[in-house]
Amino acid sequence: MKLYDDKNPAPNPRKVRIFLAEKGMDVERVRVAILKREHKAPAFLKKNSLGQLPVLELDDGTIIAESVAICRYFEALQPQPALFGETPLEQALVEMWIRRAEFRLWGPMGQVWINADPRTAVVNPNQFKDYGEHQKTIVARNMTWLDRELSDDREFLAGSRYSMADIVLLCGIDFCSFIGLDIPRELEHLRAWYARVSARPSAAA
Amino acid sequence: MKLYDDKNPAPNPRKVRIFLAEKGMDVERVRVAILKREHKAPAFLKKNSLGQLPVLELDDGTIIAESVAICRYFEALQPQPALFGETPLEQALVEMWIRRAEFRLWGPMGQVWINADPRTAVVNPNQFKDYGEHQKTIVARNMTWLDRELSDDREFLAGSRYSMADIVLLCGIDFCSFIGLDIPRELEHLRAWYARVSARPSAAA
Repeated sequence: MKLYDDKNPAPNPRKVRIFLAEKGMDVERVRVAILKREHKAPAFLKKNSLGQLPVLELDDGTIIAESVAICRYFEALQPQPALFGETPLEQALVEMWIRRAEFRLWGPMGQVWINADPRTAVVNPNQFKDYGEHQKTIVARNMTWLDRELSDDREFLAGSRYSMADIVLLCGIDFCSFIGLDIPRELEHLRAWYARVSARPSAAA
Repeated sequence: MKLYDDKNPAPNPRKVRIFLAEKGMDVERVRVAILKREHKAPAFLKKNSLGQLPVLELDDGTIIAESVAICRYFEALQPQPALFGETPLEQALVEMWIRRAEFRLWGPMGQVWINADPRTAVVNPNQFKDYGEHQKTIVARNMTWLDRELSDDREFLAGSRYSMADIVLLCGIDFCSFIGLDIPRELEHLRAWYARVSARPSAAA
């Protein structure tokens, strides 16, 4: 199988690379350069009509898109170490925190990127700047919420075990930095969590 | 355990009710009236700091929030019929289509509701109306994309088997109707899929 991938700072392909590093798995990778708009070229749109990365192509040509879906495929192929939880409760809490990281951080972060970042104005000339600027305050508010949620000093986002939820939040926080939205200094629980997950070798993926 | 729930048209609680109906499972339900803002009351915020429904409370007081996370918990407790897929590929494709239904339909639909619907102006006085109006065109464009994806006449969204992806899309389509965004008449594949999933007894949940 082949993983269609791009380099950092693209946050979605990175989730899959970190996941594979944590699993100790290796997959053939094909670079699709987002900056050159290769993900919007007709040949790639045949693989994923949404023109998005990452994409996993199986040997029979079957396509799996969406980073978390690709990771679930790898989890099913090689269950250990479990990154989507083992018990029913762990599985539910990992799913809950993946979604909270996405809805609370990735959602507004994406809106800032699309609507308020000068680097996307060329491909998105119809930016809603006021809306995008407002989303910066939502990112900050939700980082504060995350900090409060982490104030019980659990080690990882979904509990005592590293999981896909940490990968999703880490890639979100690093992309926030890329667009100028760093974790505020006073959010010590979120910063401590960030330091822990960033120190893992997989974070370099 | 107890499921904190509200009536239609709230689309997130409905996903869990449909899921339970498909599984043939029954859970004690506690009504939290969104229209009366009971989900934002201090007692409920102690259960879910985000003030959102649905919430599942286990007998030991453990809380699971996020509709899809609650459904994954039920799937792990009672795996059959499998609504999140059985083989690794099915599991991946169900996850992919859940996310596509959410990012493509629920995302812009939610922005229309929050930013352009007069019924939410009271609780969200800072509406970005132009942005919300624009999202109506995104909903329409993405319904057209869904119609094209369903044009291979597969029976269900993620393939030949009914799944959580159908539940997510169904609840999204019905909430779109509630805010005036019906499926355009010419989208026959999407309408045929909608008729199929709406005809199941679970859709009444």
